[in-house]
Amino acid sequence: MADMTPAEGEIASARIPIAVSARHVHLTQATLDALFGAGHVLRVKRALSQPGQFAAEETVTLVGPRGRLEHVRVLGPPRASDQVELARSDEIALGVDAPLRVSGDLEGTPGLEIAGPAGSVRIGRGVVTQKRHIHMSPEEARRFGVRDRECVSVAVDSQGRDLVFADVVVRVAPDFRLELHLDTDEGNAAGVCEGATATLVRLTPS
Amino acid sequence: MADMTPAEGEIASARIPIAVSARHVHLTQATLDALFGAGHVLRVKRALSQPGQFAAEETVTLVGPRGRLEHVRVLGPPRASDQVELARSDEIALGVDAPLRVSGDLEGTPGLEIAGPAGSVRIGRGVVTQKRHIHMSPEEARRFGVRDRECVSVAVDSQGRDLVFADVVVRVAPDFRLELHLDTDEGNAAGVCEGATATLVRLTPS
Repeated sequence: MADMTPAEGEIASARIPIAVSARHVHLTQATLDALFGAGHVLRVKRALSQPGQFAAEETVTLVGPRGRLEHVRVLGPPRASDQVELARSDEIALGVDAPLRVSGDLEGTPGLEIAGPAGSVRIGRGVVTQKRHIHMSPEEARRFGVRDRECVSVAVDSQGRDLVFADVVVRVAPDFRLELHLDTDEGNAAGVCEGATATLVRLTPS
Repeated sequence: MADMTPAEGEIASARIPIAVSARHVHLTQATLDALFGAGHVLRVKRALSQPGQFAAEETVTLVGPRGRLEHVRVLGPPRASDQVELARSDEIALGVDAPLRVSGDLEGTPGLEIAGPAGSVRIGRGVVTQKRHIHMSPEEARRFGVRDRECVSVAVDSQGRDLVFADVVVRVAPDFRLELHLDTDEGNAAGVCEGATATLVRLTPS
């Protein structure tokens, strides 16, 4: 068997807040125009933890070959490319097969039909399963001893569903706030509740 | 940080096949009668890996306060109690909140409406999230050095979603075949594909 020993000292005690992202879309202004009407401006429903990002009042319907998902949240502000972020459970319901990607890496990803109150659009690409990742500032990266794009492992201690996620990508940027981003499948598998945190662990061969 | 070292020797090399269980129901004969007609006999679609168990041709619709899930597989043979096994993603879609349970422990679990071609039934209890578990024979338990009902941890090595599940319950019985049972959220979070296996690991404080 393998041994996993909890960390000692400062790094171990640094708790990483967890954010579970339900399926959502980032849209271009052109797509917003087509779905909600020309010149549509997204209405802010709730600020997200990463500075400047927000959940909009607007939702869309995703239409796949196997099924549809309604009330899918639009996140703002508008982006340069349409991006649909799904959990694998969502993909199975829709009948699409999207690769595991870090945000923005959309080459070779499948498309999907998106419907809104003013019309619908078929995007040619942009559907992804988001690779789990931790946002952190350069100062936090120094403190954890990790680098941008490095893969790390984090332990989640929950009620009956403890687990350790490996293959977690570190994303470092000056305006990032420390946060582990999981999709709903991952959050559910770990039994993540409101206010849950994770700790960095290291998986090493003996 | 914590260290997790892969196991050495026989135990480490023992691969545990993984079975991902999609949402399904086990029904009593009385419930089958109500949903499919009096005296209905389930038709075998496919034998399951655990001896005597099978996926039936029959499916049902689950109706919750928030939504419905169609084409939910019935497993046979009939049981002494109705049991609806859901992933958390399913529960969110339906609008039900079921506790994490080992199979058969139905005390205090919520009910749900189940619809079939001949009628529908509202079960008073029996909706659960299945606690992840490993089936094994007494001989395999000896070989792994574990006991019935013990909680263990297993590592899954996948394409980009490696992880270690803790809180995995060992279930030992003479007619059990070695297999890790996960729900779809867990299988998706670990990137489990056809033919995937897991290995036993130990999480220990340093």
